[in-house]
Amino acid sequence: MDILSPQQLIARLEWRYATKDFDPQQKISSKVWDKIEESLVLTPSSFGLQPWKFISVTDQSTKESLLEHSWHQRQVTDCSHMVVLCAKDNMTPADVDAWLDQLCKVRNVSRDTLEGYAGMMTGFFAKMSAEEISAWSKNQVYIALGQLMAAAAVIGVDACPMEGIVADEYNRLLGLEGSGFSTSVGCAMGYRSMDDKYAELPKVRYDHDHVIKNC
Amino acid sequence: MDILSPQQLIARLEWRYATKDFDPQQKISSKVWDKIEESLVLTPSSFGLQPWKFISVTDQSTKESLLEHSWHQRQVTDCSHMVVLCAKDNMTPADVDAWLDQLCKVRNVSRDTLEGYAGMMTGFFAKMSAEEISAWSKNQVYIALGQLMAAAAVIGVDACPMEGIVADEYNRLLGLEGSGFSTSVGCAMGYRSMDDKYAELPKVRYDHDHVIKNC
Repeated sequence: MDILSPQQLIARLEWRYATKDFDPQQKISSKVWDKIEESLVLTPSSFGLQPWKFISVTDQSTKESLLEHSWHQRQVTDCSHMVVLCAKDNMTPADVDAWLDQLCKVRNVSRDTLEGYAGMMTGFFAKMSAEEISAWSKNQVYIALGQLMAAAAVIGVDACPMEGIVADEYNRLLGLEGSGFSTSVGCAMGYRSMDDKYAELPKVRYDHDHVIKNC
Repeated sequence: MDILSPQQLIARLEWRYATKDFDPQQKISSKVWDKIEESLVLTPSSFGLQPWKFISVTDQSTKESLLEHSWHQRQVTDCSHMVVLCAKDNMTPADVDAWLDQLCKVRNVSRDTLEGYAGMMTGFFAKMSAEEISAWSKNQVYIALGQLMAAAAVIGVDACPMEGIVADEYNRLLGLEGSGFSTSVGCAMGYRSMDDKYAELPKVRYDHDHVIKNC
């Protein structure tokens, strides 16, 4: 079997939780981690433009330096891989071109055939303010966060999404200043400690009819 | 087996694509759909606050009415379920209270024990402008979109994320005006038509080292 049944999917999503205590001894193997990175690369995005960078921090001293800018949440240092999801600050016609070059390379098509598509994309961004473009990028990064957490759950890896991080300090410590990318959100990944009492608490979700409407 | 291997996960993410042509005859069964709704309810969010509503549109005339506000992309009408993901416009102390009430109910704890937590959350929002809160909510909705697309992929359901929709018109047609929630993004779901030539095209992703950095 190479897919999950819908019931198995739900079991995986019930299994996952925002892990508070990672077992610092348990590292994600490189074999598993390589596939998690591959899943990040495969994340869908608007127009396919991938306005992001993903930084995977495993160096312990770097993780320690991030701790004080993470409300001292020990997930940062105890996890196996601390992923920092970064959004592109701006989108220029050159960025659209770079993606179209990649498209031409991957699909072996001529750039000439894509003028209409190029114009649509550059027109889309031309109408937006810098703030709107940055918000759009950040939204895409949250798609990556959502897929990453779901992907981790279905393969049995624990994760903790972390919005409570000081983006400017992360940018500085990770060398992002001037790169055109900024920290949006973190995701600590690894394996839960057997002592994490949060693992067994029932999830607090609104009732089905509170969040879902059918029409 | 009730989890996927990392390689199986990648195969599922390779299988998925932004479906252009849905087979209008193939509907998602209620047995499968119920679990997809359950997966939406289980979506993780910042603080667990779930600032969203998910509208599942199956009524054909409603789908037809959305078409002209979706750049006439036929995914809206040909799909089985058109999901409209909506973000909460604002977060008030009452919203924090509502969630804490749910927490107390689900976990059978006393509200008195949660004053510190309540204060932290209301303080978080008190420092934010209305625009920032709305952007925060929308980010959470994109987590849901990311999880939804990944969830669909691992159970063999096709999906097409749709940012190209006119939110104001969706709000009007779906009765969202004055509800405190606004359309963020759509996701058409169902099963691909065997004629969809996009299904077989290689994915255009930047090279691994372009998007992933290890440190």
